[in-house]
Amino acid sequence: MSHHEGDGGNSAYGHKAFKRSRAHFADRITADGGDGWPVEAGRYRLVVSRACPWASRALVSRRLLGLEDALSLAVADPIQDDRSWRFTLDPDGRDPVLGIRYLSEAYDRRERHYPGGVSVPAIVEVAGGRLVTNDYQQITLDFATEWTALHRAGAPDLYPEKRRDEIDAVMAEVFDDVNNGVYRAGFATDQQRYERACADVFRRLELLARRLAGQRYLVGDTITEADIRLFTTLVRFDAVYHGHFKCNLWKLTENRVLWAYARDLYQTPGFGDTVDFDHIKRHYHQVHTGINPTGIVPLGPDLSGWSAPHHRGELGGRPFGDGTPPGPVRADEQTPVGGRP
Amino acid sequence: MSHHEGDGGNSAYGHKAFKRSRAHFADRITADGGDGWPVEAGRYRLVVSRACPWASRALVSRRLLGLEDALSLAVADPIQDDRSWRFTLDPDGRDPVLGIRYLSEAYDRRERHYPGGVSVPAIVEVAGGRLVTNDYQQITLDFATEWTALHRAGAPDLYPEKRRDEIDAVMAEVFDDVNNGVYRAGFATDQQRYERACADVFRRLELLARRLAGQRYLVGDTITEADIRLFTTLVRFDAVYHGHFKCNLWKLTENRVLWAYARDLYQTPGFGDTVDFDHIKRHYHQVHTGINPTGIVPLGPDLSGWSAPHHRGELGGRPFGDGTPPGPVRADEQTPVGGRP
Repeated sequence: MSHHEGDGGNSAYGHKAFKRSRAHFADRITADGGDGWPVEAGRYRLVVSRACPWASRALVSRRLLGLEDALSLAVADPIQDDRSWRFTLDPDGRDPVLGIRYLSEAYDRRERHYPGGVSVPAIVEVAGGRLVTNDYQQITLDFATEWTALHRAGAPDLYPEKRRDEIDAVMAEVFDDVNNGVYRAGFATDQQRYERACADVFRRLELLARRLAGQRYLVGDTITEADIRLFTTLVRFDAVYHGHFKCNLWKLTENRVLWAYARDLYQTPGFGDTVDFDHIKRHYHQVHTGINPTGIVPLGPDLSGWSAPHHRGELGGRPFGDGTPPGPVRADEQTPVGGRP
Repeated sequence: MSHHEGDGGNSAYGHKAFKRSRAHFADRITADGGDGWPVEAGRYRLVVSRACPWASRALVSRRLLGLEDALSLAVADPIQDDRSWRFTLDPDGRDPVLGIRYLSEAYDRRERHYPGGVSVPAIVEVAGGRLVTNDYQQITLDFATEWTALHRAGAPDLYPEKRRDEIDAVMAEVFDDVNNGVYRAGFATDQQRYERACADVFRRLELLARRLAGQRYLVGDTITEADIRLFTTLVRFDAVYHGHFKCNLWKLTENRVLWAYARDLYQTPGFGDTVDFDHIKRHYHQVHTGINPTGIVPLGPDLSGWSAPHHRGELGGRPFGDGTPPGPVRADEQTPVGGRP
C-alpha cells in the first residue's frame, strides 16, 4: 500500500517511527545509457498514481519539459488492493500498453520474489515489461538533465547547473520537514513523535513563507525542481494533510504567502492540469484504514479558491526562464477540472 | 463512553445511522417540587465534563444566572474509562462532595442495573447520592425558569416567555442540523450518511450566518438559551468537529459572521470562562478510538484568535437585557485561560 517503498499504509503502523525507504531499483535512464537504459523516445512507460505526491513530481516535470510524446503514461487506480497499484481504471483492468493488471507484474519481471513494496513513480521498459527504476528522488532530476534531447522546444531548465547547490539544499529541507514531515506526523503512533513532526512541518512552512514573501520562486527567478517538490505537498495540504494527517495548526489557505505561491503554480500550465483532487482524497482516506477506519472521504475542503487571482506576478520572475509554457494537455490525459480556472 | 446516553463512543459504531437517545431520567427540579425535587440551595450537585457540549450548556447557563453558590459543581475527567465518567481529577479520585469515584455510582443508587449509558450533564441529590436527572434538553430550561428564586441579582432572562416559540423553533433546527448534526457526520459508518449529515451541518450554518449578519443574537436583541446551544457547538468546531468529525467544508474561522458571533459570546462573561480546550481536544481524540485509533491529539488549531476583537457591538443588542453580566469565576472553578482575552 505504498506510493513508494515504506510509504505508509499498513507497513508503517508496526514501527514506532515512520521511516521512508530509499528506492530499491535505482538504475538510471541516461543520455549515454551507462546503466544499460539509454534515453529513447517510446522505449519506456511512466507509471503513476495521481494521488501520490512523489509520482506527481514526475507528472509535472514531464509536462513542463514536454516529454509526453516520448514517454507514455499509465495512471493507476488511486485505491490499491492487497496486491498494490492496479490498472482498474483501464478497459478490462489492464494497462493497454504493458498488458498487465498490477504494477507488481513489472516488478516481478525485474526481480522475482522482490520482498519490498511496490511503489510509484515507476518507469517500465515497454518491450520487456520490466521495471527500470522506482527512484522517486532521481527520476525527475534525470528528466531535467538526461532527457534533454527529447525536451520540447522552449522547455525550461528545471535544474540549472549554477543553482544546483542551492536547489539541493532547499529540497533537502523541504523533503525532511515538509514532503516527508507530513507523513511522519500522519503515521506517528505516539503523541510525542507526532508533535515533533507536526511542529517540524509548520516551522519549515513558516520559513518558506518568509523566503517566498519577496520572491516568486524558491530559487532564482524561475521555476525549478525545488518548486515542483514543494508544490506536490502544498496542493495536498488542505485536502488530506490538514485533517487526515493532523497537520492542522493552520490551513494552507490561511497562510497568505504560501497560499498565493501554491495558487500561482497551480494556475501555471503543467502544474494544476496534472492534479486530480478526487484521486488524492479517495486514496488517502480509503487506503489508510489504520488512521481512518471508516474509509469515509470528507466532503471538504472547498477547492474553488485554487482558481482565485494570486497577484504573484507583481513579484516579477520569469516562470519558464528563456523558455515558454507547455501547450495544452493531451486529450487522453485530461484530469477533472477541479479548482482550475 | 457517552456525554449523555447514546452519544457516540463505541456504542455508536454498531449502528448504521447514529441515533441520539432521549435522556432516561427526566425528573425535573422545579419551584413547586412537583416531581419530588424542589429547587433548594445546596441540595443538588451538577456533574459535567467540560469536554461535552451538552453539559457545557449547563455550565454557561449556571454562570449567567449566578447559580454557582446554590448548585455546586463536579467536573469529571475528560477521558472516560470502561466504567464511564470518573472523578480522577479530584484528590484520591473521588468527588469530594458525593464521595464517589464514578458517576455511575449515582446512577446505581437511583436505579440498580440500569442498562443505559452514563451521561453528563447529570444532577445528583447530595444527601442521598442519587441521580435526579440527566435530561440535557430540560436542565437548562429549568435553570432559567424554575430556579429563579436562586438567580443572582441582575440575572438575564434566558428563556423569555414571549419569545419561546421562536427560541424553540431555532433550537430545534440547531439541534438537528448542528448540535447533533456534527455527531451524525462524525459517527457515520457509510459515505452517504456522512455526506448527508455534513451537508446538513453546513447548510444550517450558512442559514444561521445569514440570520446573524444583521442581528447580534439569534432571537431578539439579548442572549437566550438558543445562543448558548449554538455556542457550545461552535466553540468546538475547529478544535474537534472540523477534523475529527470531518465537518470540513470550512473552518469556523473562515466564516466571517459566525466566527465573529462565536468570539463575541466567548468573550462575554459566562461563556469562554467555562471552556477548557484541553479537555475538549483530549476527550474527542482519545475516547473515540473507532475514528481515531492512534488516540493522537492534534496540535492545532491555533486558538489565539478567540480573543481577537469581534466588532459585534456595532450591531447593538443588549447582551443581558435589563440585567448585568455575571461576576468573576469562583477561584475553585477557574479554567485554563486558552484563547481568552
